[in-house]
Amino acid sequence: MKEMIIQVSQEKYPIVIGSNIYDQLPNYLTKVGITEKSKILIITDNNVADFHLHKIMNILDEYDTYSYIVPAGEYSKSMKQVEKIIEYALLKGLDRFSTIIALGGGVVGDLAGFIAAIYMRGISFIQCPTTILAHDSSVGGKVGINHPLGKNLIGAFYQPKLVFYDTSFLHTLPRRQVLSGFAEVIKHGLIANAEFTNWLGTNVNSLLALEHDYVIEALYKGIGVKAAIVRKDEKELGVRAFLNYGHTLAHAIETISDYQYLHGEAVAIGMVFASKLAYEIGIASNEVVKLTENLIHSFSLPIRVKEKYDPNRLVEIMMRDKKFKNNQIRMILPTAIGNVVIKENIDRRQIVDLLQEFIK
Amino acid sequence: MKEMIIQVSQEKYPIVIGSNIYDQLPNYLTKVGITEKSKILIITDNNVADFHLHKIMNILDEYDTYSYIVPAGEYSKSMKQVEKIIEYALLKGLDRFSTIIALGGGVVGDLAGFIAAIYMRGISFIQCPTTILAHDSSVGGKVGINHPLGKNLIGAFYQPKLVFYDTSFLHTLPRRQVLSGFAEVIKHGLIANAEFTNWLGTNVNSLLALEHDYVIEALYKGIGVKAAIVRKDEKELGVRAFLNYGHTLAHAIETISDYQYLHGEAVAIGMVFASKLAYEIGIASNEVVKLTENLIHSFSLPIRVKEKYDPNRLVEIMMRDKKFKNNQIRMILPTAIGNVVIKENIDRRQIVDLLQEFIK
Repeated sequence: MKEMIIQVSQEKYPIVIGSNIYDQLPNYLTKVGITEKSKILIITDNNVADFHLHKIMNILDEYDTYSYIVPAGEYSKSMKQVEKIIEYALLKGLDRFSTIIALGGGVVGDLAGFIAAIYMRGISFIQCPTTILAHDSSVGGKVGINHPLGKNLIGAFYQPKLVFYDTSFLHTLPRRQVLSGFAEVIKHGLIANAEFTNWLGTNVNSLLALEHDYVIEALYKGIGVKAAIVRKDEKELGVRAFLNYGHTLAHAIETISDYQYLHGEAVAIGMVFASKLAYEIGIASNEVVKLTENLIHSFSLPIRVKEKYDPNRLVEIMMRDKKFKNNQIRMILPTAIGNVVIKENIDRRQIVDLLQEFIK
Repeated sequence: MKEMIIQVSQEKYPIVIGSNIYDQLPNYLTKVGITEKSKILIITDNNVADFHLHKIMNILDEYDTYSYIVPAGEYSKSMKQVEKIIEYALLKGLDRFSTIIALGGGVVGDLAGFIAAIYMRGISFIQCPTTILAHDSSVGGKVGINHPLGKNLIGAFYQPKLVFYDTSFLHTLPRRQVLSGFAEVIKHGLIANAEFTNWLGTNVNSLLALEHDYVIEALYKGIGVKAAIVRKDEKELGVRAFLNYGHTLAHAIETISDYQYLHGEAVAIGMVFASKLAYEIGIASNEVVKLTENLIHSFSLPIRVKEKYDPNRLVEIMMRDKKFKNNQIRMILPTAIGNVVIKENIDRRQIVDLLQEFIK
C-alpha cells in the first residue's frame, strides 16, 4: 500500500493506494474526521454498483449510509442528474455535516464532487476511484458537469478529504476502459517525466495485465506528477495547463462524436496530434512524434480519428473550450519526451490542415 | 464615500459605498484587475433594469458588455434560471477570464454569484447592490439558489472581487423593500453593537427618508459588523452562525408563505420570536424583548405572522434548515441588546407552543 499527502493552498488530504484494502475504509474515514454519526451518501454508477457497492455498503454499516446509482457514462454529468441527486439527499436528511463518497470513475467523481461542492454550500467529499482514468480526475479538485455546448463547462474547484484507491476494483473494468485509463498515465509521463515514460513503454504487458505492483507504481507515479503541478497552480493560471496536454482536441472529439470516444481514447489522439503540430511548428523533433505515437499505439490506444468529421467544426468546438483566452488558439505542445510548453497564437489554418490528416 | 477592505481567508476585496458614484465603476474595475478586454455579463432583474441598467451599460461602453434580466423575486433563485443564464453566457462567448456583475438586491446577488462560482469553475464576480438588504448578502461570500424543499440549499462560498454600492440607486426602491432591508441592519446592531442599535432607534426618520449620510453610515456600520464576523469564521463553523439571528424561523415563514413575506419581514418576526424564546428559556430579560419589538416596530416591520399556519409544519421546515446539526434544534438567541449566543438542544415542544402566540 502507498500513501501520499496532497497539498493544495490551505487544504491537505491523503491518497491511499493499495490492492484489496477496502475493509480499511472506515479507519481512514475516522482519520479524516468523519465519525459514525455522519450520514453518508455513496454516488456510483450501475456498472460499479453491480460489482462493488454491496462491499462498501457492508463495510460502512456503522454509518447511516445511502446510495444513489446513476447510469454509467458521460451523460450522467448533467444538471438533470445533479438536481435528482440533491433532491434525494435532501429527502434522506443529509445536512451540512454529511459526507458524499464517489465510488466510480471520472464521471462519478466529477458529478459527486460537484454535488458535494454545492450541497448546502459544500459538504465533505471522499473519492473511491474504481478506474485507472480516475487516478487523474481524483486529484486536483476539479469537479463539474457538462453542458450541451461542451464538456466540463459548469463546475468548481473542490478538494476531497480523502482519496481511497483500491486497485482490486480495477479487475472488473472492461478492457477498453483499462486502455483508456492508461492514456492519462502516459500523459503524466509525457509532460513531466521521461524516465517514467520509458518505464511505461518497457512494462506494457505487466501493466495491461493489471499486475498489481506495476499498477500501483504507475498510479503512484502518475498521481505524483499531477500533484506536483496542482500544488504549484491550483486554479490553472499557469503550469496546470500542462495537464491539458492532448485535451483540447480530445474534448472536441468527445463532443462531436457524442461521447462515442472514451476520454482516454480521445486524449490519446489529442497527444499524437499535439506532437505532430509541435513538429510542424518546429519546436519538437520527428523523434518525439514517433516515440509518442509508438507508446500510445503499444497500449492499443487510437492515434487517429476513424470518422470523417469536418475539421472546421472540430476547430470551432475547440475555440469554445475554456482554455482559450481572448479567442486566440492556445495549446500545450511537447518539445521533448517529458517536457511540454504553452504555445499561444497558433494559426487556425494550420490546425485545420493538420486535422485533415487525423481524420480518416 | 466610504471604503472598507474585506478579508476572508486568503482573499481580500474592497467595498465602496457612496451616493451617485456609479460613473466611477470603470475605475474600480481597473483597480481590481478587470481590463477592457474582458467580457462582462450584467445580471439584473426587471425592476432594477428599468431604472438603472442603461446607466451601467453606458458607463461600461468600453467593455464587451452583455446583460441578462431575470424576473424580480425569490423564484429567480432557481436551477432553471441558472441553466438559462449559463447557456446565454456560453453563447455570448464568456470565457474563464470574463466577469459577472450582479446589479440588484440579494436575489440577484445570490443567483449571479452562484453562476460566477460554477461557470467554468469560477469567474470574476462584482456586486453592485441596489437594495439595503443587499448590504448583508453582498458581504461574506455566501451565494446560492433555492430548492423546492427549502431556501439556499444549493450554493457555494464565493467571494466577489469588489462590492460597489451606489446608494442613489436605493431611491427607486419600493417602500416595502426599504423597510425589509433595514431588518438586516437592525440585526447587525442587535447581535453585536448596542450603541449602533441605539443610534438606529434614534434616527428612524432620517433613515426611512433615505437621507444619504445616514444611510451610508448605517450600511457602513452594518457591513462592519458582518465583515468582522465573517473574517473570524468564513465557513460558518462557529460565530458566523450569529448572523443567522432570526433566520431559522424566517426561512420557514418564507417557505410556508411561498415567499409572500419579504426576507427582511420574515427576519424581523424571527428576531422578535428569538428574543421571546430567550426570555422564556431564561437567558434574556423581558426588557430585551420589549426593546427588540419596539425597535422593529418603529421601522414599520412586522412582529407577528398574520396567517394561521400550522406551527408543527413550521417547525418541520425549521428542522430541515441546514443550521441544524444531527437533528437537534439549535438557534441563535439574544442575552442582551448587542449580544447573542448559540443555544443547542432546544425543546421542540417549547418552540411549537411559542409559535402559537406568533401566528395570529
